[in-house]
Amino acid sequence: MTLPMIQIALDQTDLTSAIEVARRVESFVDVIEVGTILAFAEGMNAVQTLRHNHPEHILVCDMKTTDGGAILARMAFEAGADWITVSAAAHIATIGACKKVADEFNGEIQIEIYGNWTMDDAKSWVDLGITQAIYHRSRDAELAGVGWTPADLDKMRQLSDLGLELSITGGIVPEDLYLFEGIKAKTFIAGRALAGEKGRETAEALKGQIERFWG
Amino acid sequence: MTLPMIQIALDQTDLTSAIEVARRVESFVDVIEVGTILAFAEGMNAVQTLRHNHPEHILVCDMKTTDGGAILARMAFEAGADWITVSAAAHIATIGACKKVADEFNGEIQIEIYGNWTMDDAKSWVDLGITQAIYHRSRDAELAGVGWTPADLDKMRQLSDLGLELSITGGIVPEDLYLFEGIKAKTFIAGRALAGEKGRETAEALKGQIERFWG
Repeated sequence: MTLPMIQIALDQTDLTSAIEVARRVESFVDVIEVGTILAFAEGMNAVQTLRHNHPEHILVCDMKTTDGGAILARMAFEAGADWITVSAAAHIATIGACKKVADEFNGEIQIEIYGNWTMDDAKSWVDLGITQAIYHRSRDAELAGVGWTPADLDKMRQLSDLGLELSITGGIVPEDLYLFEGIKAKTFIAGRALAGEKGRETAEALKGQIERFWG
Repeated sequence: MTLPMIQIALDQTDLTSAIEVARRVESFVDVIEVGTILAFAEGMNAVQTLRHNHPEHILVCDMKTTDGGAILARMAFEAGADWITVSAAAHIATIGACKKVADEFNGEIQIEIYGNWTMDDAKSWVDLGITQAIYHRSRDAELAGVGWTPADLDKMRQLSDLGLELSITGGIVPEDLYLFEGIKAKTFIAGRALAGEKGRETAEALKGQIERFWG
């Protein structure tokens, strides 16, 4: 199994700032994400520009696609994305439409887990050939300073057991990575923690923990 | 009760085409929607431009907001949107964050109904002061031949009874409007049916049916 990767989420509201952050972190991240905020702020020009600036990185467009799957997926892949996100709340036909376009571009779909999803939903994603999902820590828990709950970890293990590689996000810190041992982790996603002054240090600490628990 | 309005969804992948369509339909639609596709294609420039071109119309930004509510809502309202859409799959804290920003701008939130939502979810939206929701057949479900079902109509009546005004979309044709009689309909949304050669005729037929069943 390949080791989990480090992903930066670019959620700036203007492309100029996002370009700067991406340049600053490119040497220590594997995956660059055009966040939903940046994509809505600047449109597909954000994806095109970051693709041009970072030809060797995996580039994700975080559209949280909920409908109009084929058109949105084509737009993002044509602009240069390698992966796009699709909402778990999308109709299965929408997810299928995205997958079909992704296959055409050798791209991948990541199911972004929000709302009242079920393990049966997850099985239907796997049946479509989807191999990735994104798991967020409960925003309430995060705001209340509560850590990853046993319920979170249990669901993540179940998704992992279904064969889904998980990208994990929501206040990711190096000290917490041991919690996810045994889970098929694709990436650990952070924004400000990687963009800030201590970004390189944080990335190195994350990589140390990844080596320890997945190496 | 005010009569249901006619809404055009601009789902072009470039702003130039969207501007043309909006100009062509402005005399017979009440609400102009920057669709998710257009918003992701061109960013908030699409909202700003359509606001500038159509100062008297209600302008919707269809973000299907799922996370990062406060920032996305502020971006859209600052660009000139009157209403923004928020996904039913969003955490209640995200919906609340959007509502708070909307209040600041005298804007409104429309809950866009996707995923495994429940009537308890709907009650929690109403408790936040939300007054609008969007009910539709998914574009992709529609393509898969899924029609308006008695279950759809029952759910719409329940939402309406909770006090939510509904915008209804997904292959809307004048002949179907009788199905929605008695439901608090805010708008009927169409894209190509209004943008095409027979757009004005379709709008007039819709208005005739609206007068008949809600007048």
